[in-house]
Amino acid sequence: MAVYTDVSFEELKLFLGAYNLGEPHVFKGIAEGVSNSNYFLQTSTGSYILTLYEVRVEAEDLPFYLGLMEHLAQRGIPCPIPVHADDGRVTGILNGRPAAVLTFLDGVSLRRPTPDHCHLAGQAMAQFHAAGSHFDQHRNNALGPDGWRQLVNDCAASADSIVPGLRGVIEEEVSVLHSLWPRDLPGGVIHADLFPDNVLFVNNRISGIIDLYFACNDALAYDLAVTLNAWCFETDGAFNVTNGRAMIAGYESQRKFTPGERACFPVLCRGAALRFLLTRLYDWINHNPAALVRPKNPKEFLRRLRFHRAVTDFRAYGF
Amino acid sequence: MAVYTDVSFEELKLFLGAYNLGEPHVFKGIAEGVSNSNYFLQTSTGSYILTLYEVRVEAEDLPFYLGLMEHLAQRGIPCPIPVHADDGRVTGILNGRPAAVLTFLDGVSLRRPTPDHCHLAGQAMAQFHAAGSHFDQHRNNALGPDGWRQLVNDCAASADSIVPGLRGVIEEEVSVLHSLWPRDLPGGVIHADLFPDNVLFVNNRISGIIDLYFACNDALAYDLAVTLNAWCFETDGAFNVTNGRAMIAGYESQRKFTPGERACFPVLCRGAALRFLLTRLYDWINHNPAALVRPKNPKEFLRRLRFHRAVTDFRAYGF
Repeated sequence: MAVYTDVSFEELKLFLGAYNLGEPHVFKGIAEGVSNSNYFLQTSTGSYILTLYEVRVEAEDLPFYLGLMEHLAQRGIPCPIPVHADDGRVTGILNGRPAAVLTFLDGVSLRRPTPDHCHLAGQAMAQFHAAGSHFDQHRNNALGPDGWRQLVNDCAASADSIVPGLRGVIEEEVSVLHSLWPRDLPGGVIHADLFPDNVLFVNNRISGIIDLYFACNDALAYDLAVTLNAWCFETDGAFNVTNGRAMIAGYESQRKFTPGERACFPVLCRGAALRFLLTRLYDWINHNPAALVRPKNPKEFLRRLRFHRAVTDFRAYGF
Repeated sequence: MAVYTDVSFEELKLFLGAYNLGEPHVFKGIAEGVSNSNYFLQTSTGSYILTLYEVRVEAEDLPFYLGLMEHLAQRGIPCPIPVHADDGRVTGILNGRPAAVLTFLDGVSLRRPTPDHCHLAGQAMAQFHAAGSHFDQHRNNALGPDGWRQLVNDCAASADSIVPGLRGVIEEEVSVLHSLWPRDLPGGVIHADLFPDNVLFVNNRISGIIDLYFACNDALAYDLAVTLNAWCFETDGAFNVTNGRAMIAGYESQRKFTPGERACFPVLCRGAALRFLLTRLYDWINHNPAALVRPKNPKEFLRRLRFHRAVTDFRAYGF
């Protein structure tokens, strides 16, 4: 996590000329996000995040991401709000990158969420899903089953050098999940990456849902499967069913899962574990030491995947 | 510039238990400083910087650095103030590193300072020198002539691979400067690294003098020679005498240089250019790609060194 594109104060001033944000008083690169450059900006009108989008694919999807944030914020979800320039645009170009100014949200992310935090996260996710319905843009999940197959192809040759036997596991898993994967669950806009880093708390209440740059249209229950993978496992790899039960109860306090969603939940959890196993594996293999980011170890999601493969009944998660 | 040591919110809370700072609301790693980890921290009582000291030598000198900041701040210099824990200490241990909480200063650093900014920087430096007198601790300049000799030894073998002929230049320069170097100029506590990044402005007034982690006892005029190297050259390497004149006038508005300081100024400027040429060269050669820092190109200080070697009269700088 680092700043890739350096922005001087003079360049910032020029860029901010298109906005009505007042005089900048604080401007500091922050170690947030993996693929974009982020600056903390304080002006006479408030606190903001300035983001420079470094990756082409994200730039193409910016109208979706920024439009979604605005849509959700208008419906009470505490996500960052893109600031409009004087001419109405929400993106500009800064040092050759598309860039946006978003409102800054107070709050801290947790490393070891308690069951109470998991309950709140589940509840917030269901509210996110409800608020996202009727959003009029659409984005396919690039990291769904077809994306996994591509990642397996890219990583297969090196996988065994990371963990002996890993190639066989991912090749088999992607093929099994292709046939098991449910295609007709209730769908909508999902966050798709609601790890603890992306939920901010102030005084044990959620103050922010951030980093919507994987948001897409997919099965709603898959979103909870991602979050359960991210929040409900101990560092030693064990599933924390107390956290899982709290998260599911939080979600279902807003919207009950259908019988179909419940029945498919173990498969969705396998898919979510495979998705993060594969992207972390890809980043591990293709790590560029100059990228100023330390890749995350893929092994922890291999452990989660093994757990989910052994689950025979959705009730194991705390339903 | 990055965060080396990861601190979770839970670890932060534990650490802050020793301080009377209120509830933390914002906690973000910031891309500031080259060798330490820095976090922006906002609590119910204000804004702070939490610094984890990663390098052993800095830890040993922490009483000097932190004591100096407190001494200077009490005398009106706008530098960060170390926050005392409830038991009076200004450092604690966080994730195995010595750590300190300092007050956060508003302001932005400039990439292209104008003559007015240079005048203010010169003035602030003289005020820094005046406020630093009677500070009761002492720290030798580890990056003075003896330090340069060590750096030349460390870098000589690789120097020509960076710039052909560089080895000869630095070996000759360090030897010439050893004999020319003045030993009896007015001395005191100097900042020793007052680059534009380390001076914060709000509305074209100085709001902060930061990063005192090279501060030491040395010739006062050498400090201005460093700053002149850092603020008064164009990106193409040309000396900007308007900036130089403004900076010197700013300094001399508070304290006139002695005839000896003036006469020695070209040599001090050579030494300052050599010091940054050598440390950048060392960092370039010994760059660890895992260090999350991009080394700075040493060549720009080779150009400055060549400029200073050609100066025959201190008036060339704008006296």
